[in-house]
Amino acid sequence: MTKIGVLLSGCGFKDGSEIHEATLALYFLDRAGAQVVCMAPDAAQHDVVDHATGRATRESRNMLVEAARIARGKIVDLASVSTVELDGLVMPGGFGAAKNLCDFALQGGRAQAHPQVQRVLREMHAARKPIGAICIAPAVVAASFRGTATHAKLTIGEHAGTADALRALGAEHANCGVREFVVDEANRIVSTPAYMYDARISEVAAGIERLVAEVMRLSSLGSSAHPSPSRATS
Amino acid sequence: MTKIGVLLSGCGFKDGSEIHEATLALYFLDRAGAQVVCMAPDAAQHDVVDHATGRATRESRNMLVEAARIARGKIVDLASVSTVELDGLVMPGGFGAAKNLCDFALQGGRAQAHPQVQRVLREMHAARKPIGAICIAPAVVAASFRGTATHAKLTIGEHAGTADALRALGAEHANCGVREFVVDEANRIVSTPAYMYDARISEVAAGIERLVAEVMRLSSLGSSAHPSPSRATS
Repeated sequence: MTKIGVLLSGCGFKDGSEIHEATLALYFLDRAGAQVVCMAPDAAQHDVVDHATGRATRESRNMLVEAARIARGKIVDLASVSTVELDGLVMPGGFGAAKNLCDFALQGGRAQAHPQVQRVLREMHAARKPIGAICIAPAVVAASFRGTATHAKLTIGEHAGTADALRALGAEHANCGVREFVVDEANRIVSTPAYMYDARISEVAAGIERLVAEVMRLSSLGSSAHPSPSRATS
Repeated sequence: MTKIGVLLSGCGFKDGSEIHEATLALYFLDRAGAQVVCMAPDAAQHDVVDHATGRATRESRNMLVEAARIARGKIVDLASVSTVELDGLVMPGGFGAAKNLCDFALQGGRAQAHPQVQRVLREMHAARKPIGAICIAPAVVAASFRGTATHAKLTIGEHAGTADALRALGAEHANCGVREFVVDEANRIVSTPAYMYDARISEVAAGIERLVAEVMRLSSLGSSAHPSPSRATS
């Protein structure tokens, strides 16, 4: 059975994982026959935002504990994850990806990834296992490979300023519609813009469904297929 | 355009709305062409539960504010909802339905519904607009019509003790598989057991997809169609 990790960063698009993107990823992965393992760093969120008003609160919440709401309690600490056991990884978006898993929302083209996130992404890539990044999660990929020879081809839709920041991190950006995805076949990285657009949930779902199918296809290729000069050297 | 209310009770199955059920309902409603209005009571949750450990915390959270995480900020106070504007209502499950929207989790067959929840459900029923109840949300329906002449036919799967408590509230219970639904045509109430079973998300989705289709069908019938002796007298 194909085992896919789903990397979460909290619960709610303003301070954690985007709930629709995460749930739809879990749904399409399950429907595709994948065994899913939810994971998150066991650490405080960057902030807590009241999703009714949009204002930051004085609360403190933990990424793993909040992400467990999406995972229905079945979640593991990212630090305990051995990538040897995984066949692929999917990251939903939401500001948690850009504030908790890396600091792209604050640092833009100078962003750094959370150390455990960077470890897991680099190990997956080195083992030629696919990474699917939804919405703003491509920024986590770009930050994790910043300064390496890996220049992933990614999409966050068609927002020029955000695309420029991804390029500053060393990634290549391609515009993409909400129902579509971009695949970097050499690096086995798949991305779809989802709620980077002010889109309907059914449109977001169409893109995520296709991203999941592509991650599943790439996970079946094995490590020796499609060798490429752009393979990780990180 | 058919306008369907989605009544939420927080964000997370141990103290609020079940996230998968809520998101999948939003997805299938959107795909069916419905205009969705998310709503929740503006009041404190019964409790806050750490979803990683399952233990209650000392925090206090507001149903509306937490439900806004699922609704992506677009949510209205249930007290401000005029049912004249709605063509149907869907309630996801999660313990929030049984602890916040009514007190079924604590009182069982003596449960009472939150006053605003009872108002909205009775108004929808009196206007012959369909109500879809997922997972444990049928308990909210039963509590809302307790002591009236409306004896809704419902399902929460096949848990005998819970079914008995629903009967004590005046409802009729029918066993039902996770991919199926039960419809009370006369009362225009639809239910599916979802995570009342220890089920896969794709199984839960199959039942919710069918429940949504049935709610959409019933909402198209209009108030004069299918008059029935069991029509609301509450």
